[in-house]
This record gives sequence, C-alpha cells and structure tokens, in this order.
Amino acid sequence: MPGAGPSINLATVREQWTLIEAVEACVRHGILAVDPWRDQVAKVGLDHAVRAIKDNGLHVSGYCRGGLFTADTAAGRQAAIDDNKRAIDEAAALGADCLVLVVGGLPKGSRDLGAARQMVADGLAAILPHARSCGVPLAIEPLHPMYAGERACVNTLGQALDLCDALGEGTGVAIDAYHVWWDPDLARQIARAGTDNRILAYHICDWLVPTRDLLLDRGMMGDGVIDLPRIRGWVEQAGYQGWTEVEIFSATDWWKRPGDEVIRTCIERFATAS
Amino acid sequence: MPGAGPSINLATVREQWTLIEAVEACVRHGILAVDPWRDQVAKVGLDHAVRAIKDNGLHVSGYCRGGLFTADTAAGRQAAIDDNKRAIDEAAALGADCLVLVVGGLPKGSRDLGAARQMVADGLAAILPHARSCGVPLAIEPLHPMYAGERACVNTLGQALDLCDALGEGTGVAIDAYHVWWDPDLARQIARAGTDNRILAYHICDWLVPTRDLLLDRGMMGDGVIDLPRIRGWVEQAGYQGWTEVEIFSATDWWKRPGDEVIRTCIERFATAS
Repeated sequence: MPGAGPSINLATVREQWTLIEAVEACVRHGILAVDPWRDQVAKVGLDHAVRAIKDNGLHVSGYCRGGLFTADTAAGRQAAIDDNKRAIDEAAALGADCLVLVVGGLPKGSRDLGAARQMVADGLAAILPHARSCGVPLAIEPLHPMYAGERACVNTLGQALDLCDALGEGTGVAIDAYHVWWDPDLARQIARAGTDNRILAYHICDWLVPTRDLLLDRGMMGDGVIDLPRIRGWVEQAGYQGWTEVEIFSATDWWKRPGDEVIRTCIERFATAS
Repeated sequence: MPGAGPSINLATVREQWTLIEAVEACVRHGILAVDPWRDQVAKVGLDHAVRAIKDNGLHVSGYCRGGLFTADTAAGRQAAIDDNKRAIDEAAALGADCLVLVVGGLPKGSRDLGAARQMVADGLAAILPHARSCGVPLAIEPLHPMYAGERACVNTLGQALDLCDALGEGTGVAIDAYHVWWDPDLARQIARAGTDNRILAYHICDWLVPTRDLLLDRGMMGDGVIDLPRIRGWVEQAGYQGWTEVEIFSATDWWKRPGDEVIRTCIERFATAS
C-alpha cells in the first residue's frame, strides 16, 4: 500500500459533484487516492466509475460502505448479507483496499443492543468467505456512541478489534478520528490494532464545538478540538503506512462551498492540522 | 438510604417552576425525593430551599452539580475548586445523598484530553478532604462521549470507577442511563461499581431516534431506544437500593408542557417503562 498522503472520501464533495467530476477534480489537485460511496458509483454505473478511476491512475483507499447487518426479520438480515456480497464485488472491481463497514444500529422496534451486536457478528461471519475469495479486506468501523441507536452498535475500537479476533483473517478496522477521539482507551487499542496489522483505513475530520447536528456537522481539520497530530502519531506508531482519508459530512458549511475550495482546503489542512 | 422509588431531578421542570413551586408539585404528586440544581437553589436562596425541602419531608437524592474542574489557567482551576467546596457545603445543608459532578471538558483553546483528565483527577483530590469532612459523597458522573469536548472528559463508567479507585473513600459514581447505555462494557462496569458500593445515584430518561439536539432533546422513558429495565436490573443486581432519578432536558417537548403533566408522566413511565 503506497500512501501517507491524503485520500479524499468522496462524500466530502457529494453535494457538489458526481463521482466522475469529483475524480477529475481530485486529479486536478494532485490527489492520488479516493474513497467513493456506493450511491455515487451506482449513479454513474460501476463500469464507468472503474474506468474513470483507473484511467486517472487513482488508488482506491476504501469503498463506502457495507454493513447495516441488523434487521427485525431473518429475511431482512439475509437481504443485508446479499447486498454486502454485491458491495464486495464492487469493491473488488474498483480495486479498493477494503470495504468499509458501518455495521447497523438497533433494528426497528428493538431496544436489545446485545441482540443487534450478535446480528452484526453473524452478518460479518456470513460475508467473510466471499470477501476472502475476492481479496477484499473487511474494515469494521466503530462509530461514535451517539450513533448506537440508528447506525452502528459497534462503538469503540476495542469492540471492533474483539470482532476481528473472533473472525480472523480478512478483517480489520477503519479508524475514524471523529468517532474515537474521546475514548480514554484509544492509544492502547490503536497499538493493539497495529500488532495484528489490522488498521485498514484511517479517516479524519474534526469535532466542532458546538456540534449542531449529530450527523452532518463535521468540521475541517483544525477547526475543531480533536488532537489529530497525536492520534496520527499513535496510528503511525502502530505501523500504519496507508492513506489518510478526509471524510467530512457538512450540510451547513463545506457542502455549500465550491468543490475546488473544499479539496484545496483538505490538502492544506492535511499538511498543517492533521 | 430509603428508595427504589422515583426521584425528580428538578431540571426536568426547570422551565415551568421555581424550586419552591417544583417541590410543592412533587409533594402534591406523592414524590418522596428530589435533586435540585445549584442555580435553582441560588434563585430562591439556600435557606429557603432547605426549609421548603425539609418542611415537606422530601429526601434529597443528589445535588446537581459540582465539577467543571478544567480551566486554561491555574487561577481558573483554583476558582473551580473553591466553588466546588461551596457546592459541598450547600449539599450538606440540603442533606443531599451526594454531590453530582460533571467534571468539565477541554479547557478553552486546548485539544489535550489527557491534560484535561489530569486536571479532573487533581480537582477531585483537592476537594475530597472537604467533602469527607462534610459527609458529602462525591458522585462522578461519566457523560456521553458526545460531551467530551465541552462538558465532561470522563466518558465511560469504567473511567469514572478508575478515578474512584485512585481517590478512595468518599467517592462513587452517578450512573445516568442516557450517558452509558451504548457501552459494550456496561454490565461488567455496573457490577464492578457494585462490589465497592460505589453507585451513589441512578438517573434515567430515554434516547430519542432521531435526536435533534446534543443537549436538550432527551426523551421520556419509553419514548426512545434505551433498554431501561435491563439496565435497572444490572444496577439492582449490583446492590443499589437507592432512588431512581428522572432527569429530562427537553427544550422541544417536556419543558413546554404543564409541569403537572410532566411529573405525572414521569411517575407513570417510571412504573411502566424503566
């Protein structure tokens, strides 16, 4: 894996550009890697997306996203498994370093986090053989605890690594500073992730004070309170030499600015504030 | 400590009533315990508050709140320590079971969570002798990780209990289901808290999906996704026999309803959904 440079997670400019336009902009700005989202790929078609990325010589640092294993019916859980297998195929076609997994929150009508977590373990086990045969590592992304209800019931890096321990080869973690920066056990868990080479992706943005929306108010690096250089140090010390993906969901600010300004700022802040 | 009944944290009706009015309403509804906030006490005067609570035979299940130990200057940290000592005196005058501590987030301009956490440990150590001499237990309240930047850098029950281990007698924890429900280690840490009789308070409300505001959108028990009966079971199994405090900050809903409706609903939902 080449890297240590910035990769642009294409959600960062999802409101400004199609995948093709975003890829061209990244190339224009000297960006060497991207992480596209499934809906962005679907919109232009997988073949077109693959061609645009490969023709431009871009690396694919990850593919967002699989997961969402939790559902209130067995049929719903099976549908999620089937859909994840398609996501694995797409990730393979794109040559992605990993498939990023947002595992799913509580099923509709449920308050049983333990059961949801078991559904996640079961779903992961069900798709792992296909991921292995396709050579696509599964990157479990622990999400901030404020998403436990709706999006992901894996909420700490330690919990994600426990899943990797249980599942074995072909699994790892996506560490997003936004989700884990608060964790008093973070340094230790990053080191633990490194011992098994389980860090498959490293994502950055910043935590704004105040944060006005639980989902769409992420900040540009340097504008918030996360000590990104410190976390980057831990990640590097753990042996990670891959890309650093900038992923910013910002309905109030960055999604409203011209895409070129966003990419330019990502590059600057990657250098000065991460 | 008598209990196992509901206590009303008076923040739940702070927009409707003064402390005196809230106390009278609680009595009217058969509530036997309350937890007043410092600003509510200050507004009517400590003596008046003490008299209203004692004349009505109400128990004080906790006093909200001390803490906020983190500051960017030594003078600021000393001012916090002095203010906490006054809060301890007030808690003693009120006969409160404990002083609830929201420990403080990152100081202005800082991104150093480790340093903030050390300030908290230092602040706690500085006020503990006074708390012991006044017979007021200090209840460290781990806050949800979404408050790590602004309000409290103690974000898990395990982390709070580590502080208790270091500080010793006279310290314990306030467990608020809203802050800890997502924690994959919760059952184990509640059991750990029980072994040393460190559960000083148990607070409830609910996590709404979606949550529209990070601070002021707490739900009434039963309206959200927290498995309150399960957590209550763990807390009781850990030996806690005290009050269950209902604490709801709800700018969008409950603070807008008549106070009597709020109290009546708290009592109902305590019985049916907690």
